[in-house]
Amino acid sequence: MSAQIDPFHAIGISTLAHRLKAEGRSIIHMEFGQPSTGAPRAAVEAAHRVLDTDGMGYWESPALKARIARHYAETYGVTVQPDQLILTCGASPALVLALVSSFQPGDRVALARPGYVAYRNVLKGLHMVPVEIASGPEDRFQLTAAHLAALVPAPAGVIIASPANPTGTIIEAAELEAIAGVCRERGIRIISDEIYHGLSYVAPARSVLEFEPEALVVNSFSKYFSMVGWRLGWLLVPPEHLPRARAFVGNMFLTAPSLSQHAALAAMDAREELQGHLDVYRRNRQLLLDALPALGLAEIAPPDGAFYIWANIAHLTDDSLAFCKQLLRDTGVATAPGVDFDPVDGRHFFRMSFAVSTPQIQEAIARMTPWFATAGAAATASA
Amino acid sequence: MSAQIDPFHAIGISTLAHRLKAEGRSIIHMEFGQPSTGAPRAAVEAAHRVLDTDGMGYWESPALKARIARHYAETYGVTVQPDQLILTCGASPALVLALVSSFQPGDRVALARPGYVAYRNVLKGLHMVPVEIASGPEDRFQLTAAHLAALVPAPAGVIIASPANPTGTIIEAAELEAIAGVCRERGIRIISDEIYHGLSYVAPARSVLEFEPEALVVNSFSKYFSMVGWRLGWLLVPPEHLPRARAFVGNMFLTAPSLSQHAALAAMDAREELQGHLDVYRRNRQLLLDALPALGLAEIAPPDGAFYIWANIAHLTDDSLAFCKQLLRDTGVATAPGVDFDPVDGRHFFRMSFAVSTPQIQEAIARMTPWFATAGAAATASA
Repeated sequence: MSAQIDPFHAIGISTLAHRLKAEGRSIIHMEFGQPSTGAPRAAVEAAHRVLDTDGMGYWESPALKARIARHYAETYGVTVQPDQLILTCGASPALVLALVSSFQPGDRVALARPGYVAYRNVLKGLHMVPVEIASGPEDRFQLTAAHLAALVPAPAGVIIASPANPTGTIIEAAELEAIAGVCRERGIRIISDEIYHGLSYVAPARSVLEFEPEALVVNSFSKYFSMVGWRLGWLLVPPEHLPRARAFVGNMFLTAPSLSQHAALAAMDAREELQGHLDVYRRNRQLLLDALPALGLAEIAPPDGAFYIWANIAHLTDDSLAFCKQLLRDTGVATAPGVDFDPVDGRHFFRMSFAVSTPQIQEAIARMTPWFATAGAAATASA
Repeated sequence: MSAQIDPFHAIGISTLAHRLKAEGRSIIHMEFGQPSTGAPRAAVEAAHRVLDTDGMGYWESPALKARIARHYAETYGVTVQPDQLILTCGASPALVLALVSSFQPGDRVALARPGYVAYRNVLKGLHMVPVEIASGPEDRFQLTAAHLAALVPAPAGVIIASPANPTGTIIEAAELEAIAGVCRERGIRIISDEIYHGLSYVAPARSVLEFEPEALVVNSFSKYFSMVGWRLGWLLVPPEHLPRARAFVGNMFLTAPSLSQHAALAAMDAREELQGHLDVYRRNRQLLLDALPALGLAEIAPPDGAFYIWANIAHLTDDSLAFCKQLLRDTGVATAPGVDFDPVDGRHFFRMSFAVSTPQIQEAIARMTPWFATAGAAATASA
């Protein structure tokens, strides 16, 4: 029998949300990290143009790879060759590709807890060993260079994520540099998930490549570029890792969707529209931050980037999954239970995605405020 | 360090072909199993319609899953529930999903040699153990129930493919039933790659599900439906395997491209256009079969289906990769070296794909006929 891995409970929440919607309920979907906006207009137009003319065989767009390479130069000041980029069907297979081409069964790979559920589960699914580093408010819910220096023996690899899911916290430049230093010293391969880059509300997130050119970087068009269902991401690898990664991708995945590659090339220059989305998220974030006191949510991770609020609900429940189901049933607001992101402490947290429209955020707050007042009172009463 | 797996040499041939083309040479691409036709007209129209209206989030089309389920009832007379279907970004991740959710590192999985290169390589990449069953003209280049009955100990699984790549041979109903019987008896999990279904020139290929409902079936819209770059495939799993498979797909891959799902639904009813492609392949196949004597290619696998000719060239070379490169340089006809499909005997074989237009096949034959006459003479002279 193959490895046992956990289901993603937010999918269960979403299924319940859709069932309630079918029953006529008004639902606000804040359970997934999915922009409610579609692809940029220019991307859709590019797709229309190409649909009738491109035979769409197995293809990897040289123009898109060159454009992404330019993006690294412009955004981070780092030089990468287009050939270092492997286009994938979203960030998920890029992560799988990074792991299978870097590690073998039994290898230990460090990661922060809480963290994106798939890190832990894909590692387990590939029979690698997740080494979860508990992190909380004191270290901004991120692993640190000190954590990595203290691990004995040194793990084979580490997955870092900045901005992170579920917390939205960003690893600051000095810490990122320190992490790179420890990893270089101890021979720890860095896999950096930079899928939320572009979505920052403080200083922009830095790429690990600014500090460690040997790192593998995962990214995608699903978040900042708002192209979730187009399934297009990339893995950036150092030159000497390329033959290995190419051998794996040719056997395990082949190419990424052709039409999405054409569309993504156009999306990369649709900055005005995309910055408009970011303005919406910024407003939504502020509305939520302003509302949190009335919800009684005093402990949250600093939402530096991405589009999440990760909030402590230990005063309300010991079962975040039941909590999220109840919140959904009572208010129509769908959120993600902390257990998806943290198997130990996640029962005391939940995640709200604010990648929805501002009227939806306002409505969600209006519904949640009385609910939390009651839930808070009920929890206090039963305590 | 992770597993070492081989590169796909046909990609090297293709790269050379594109370089020669850039130098002004006329190239005929017969190296990949890729229809030269695009998606059916109705699929492209559906894509245009949906592009402006669908936000394209994470999505799995209930209508497409229902339509595929109906396809199983109509084509094979087997009942499957839409929920047994998992839509993937092509057949490649469907195969990965089937393997990781069924087996663990060290598990032995049988497969025919020659066979599709990715079977062996993905197994090795996942640290499973390919058990290659040498097959040749005497067993139509397919593994048999007798082969599986004779393996000691019984392998954990077997990958079967009918029609097969690179040979195009089909496993006949009685043999498929016998294979299912042996596997049931010995507890061998069947993974059936049915990606070339619909492309038959003799009796249609049967689905393993007609004989073994517990099998996992891989399929895709890339071959018969001519939608290669749309990256859409599926894995069909028995109900009790579904929670495991769902947990893996949610963590490793998420969803398939939304637009491709809309387009594929339309493609499934574009039978007239698709049967037109099949008519072209049938003509191409016959033209090649008629030309083979003049090429001196006397031993080929029976091309029952798919769009390949697998031909023995032992009288001409011991190095099929060098042979394919020379053929390409001399004639502009790109083909795939046998070493991609058979690490032992593949040096004596090459594969021609006839999924091109009929004028291209005619031109390829016109170029290859004198070349083989010379190459044959040269080989005879040097022998």
